[in-house]
Amino acid sequence: MRFYFDFISPYAYLAWTQLRTRPDLTPVPILFAGLLEAHGTRGPAEVPAKRRYIFRDTLRTARRLGVPFAPPPAHPFNPLLALRVASLPTTPRSVIDALFSAVWGGGHGVTDPAEVARIAGESAITEANTPENKQRLRQQTDDAIARGVFGVPTIEVDGELFWGVDSIANLDAYLRGDGAIDPADIARWESLPAQATRRGQG
Amino acid sequence: MRFYFDFISPYAYLAWTQLRTRPDLTPVPILFAGLLEAHGTRGPAEVPAKRRYIFRDTLRTARRLGVPFAPPPAHPFNPLLALRVASLPTTPRSVIDALFSAVWGGGHGVTDPAEVARIAGESAITEANTPENKQRLRQQTDDAIARGVFGVPTIEVDGELFWGVDSIANLDAYLRGDGAIDPADIARWESLPAQATRRGQG
Repeated sequence: MRFYFDFISPYAYLAWTQLRTRPDLTPVPILFAGLLEAHGTRGPAEVPAKRRYIFRDTLRTARRLGVPFAPPPAHPFNPLLALRVASLPTTPRSVIDALFSAVWGGGHGVTDPAEVARIAGESAITEANTPENKQRLRQQTDDAIARGVFGVPTIEVDGELFWGVDSIANLDAYLRGDGAIDPADIARWESLPAQATRRGQG
Repeated sequence: MRFYFDFISPYAYLAWTQLRTRPDLTPVPILFAGLLEAHGTRGPAEVPAKRRYIFRDTLRTARRLGVPFAPPPAHPFNPLLALRVASLPTTPRSVIDALFSAVWGGGHGVTDPAEVARIAGESAITEANTPENKQRLRQQTDDAIARGVFGVPTIEVDGELFWGVDSIANLDAYLRGDGAIDPADIARWESLPAQATRRGQG
């Protein structure tokens, strides 16, 4: 089970708090901005009404889930160093935990390399910035896009995607065996004719 | 409690099945395409990876909620006549129910005026198409945009917005009195500096 995430997303943090102890979870850091570029979409923080909504929705959801939640010192911020550290094969899950907490759990954020070094160790910073590791993060992002990932968090299991903290209910139904969907239903959806596009609706 | 919806949205249908019997609910039809234009966003069906995802996610969510679900004969389709009928002050909730079922509950869709007339009555079609009623739908959409609505379904209570079928858990927490958020937390979010924009992240 892959967990695609970017530290920039509060929903990725909220989903991580719910899934982090699952033993079969493989965290896969990806650059959310790369998804947006690939799909030609705008991020939620780039739409003012949505950005305002997200403040309230994430605070409410964190309270409902009973997890610590506070916005980072700045947002949006550059998540690259933290994503690269999290991408190192040697990085333990506890460091990903600590990086998430630094961003969304009331910490000091992850844009200051000294803060990231304090969490992950100096050598992790050096390794994170090698060309090989930078390429690893790019490859993870490209692979996710190729698998149909368009947002974070996304959980992938058996090639099936579950997007967003709210999709955990559907994920769990799937894992219990209740969530298999009839390929004929999917095929019907996919073959639907479009009777109107936006320009024609006005 | 206002329920903003467009028949074009399967998530609006799914949320309607969960909320339709609440006595304090006021259904407010709006044109989703108008929201997209106003906020400069693309609809989920306009992003191919998201469109593919939505087929699976809506089928799974409908099954989890135990509600009938089947895609309409065509999608996207022109929802204007159905939205105008639903906007008439004389239209009972049972007609909104029947229109939703015609679209997402295995019916014949709502693009054929004869089908809408069968559901709502011939006189409803005539009334729906008066300039006054067309203006009513436009006004409802504009008012929703002014209140910060950017997607459907959205539930508004006390000026607070709850977007999407998945926000019902947060809505219910709010209605129980568990969901009040500290204005200081909101203020902190809203005043966050941006440390990076997308162009600067690459």
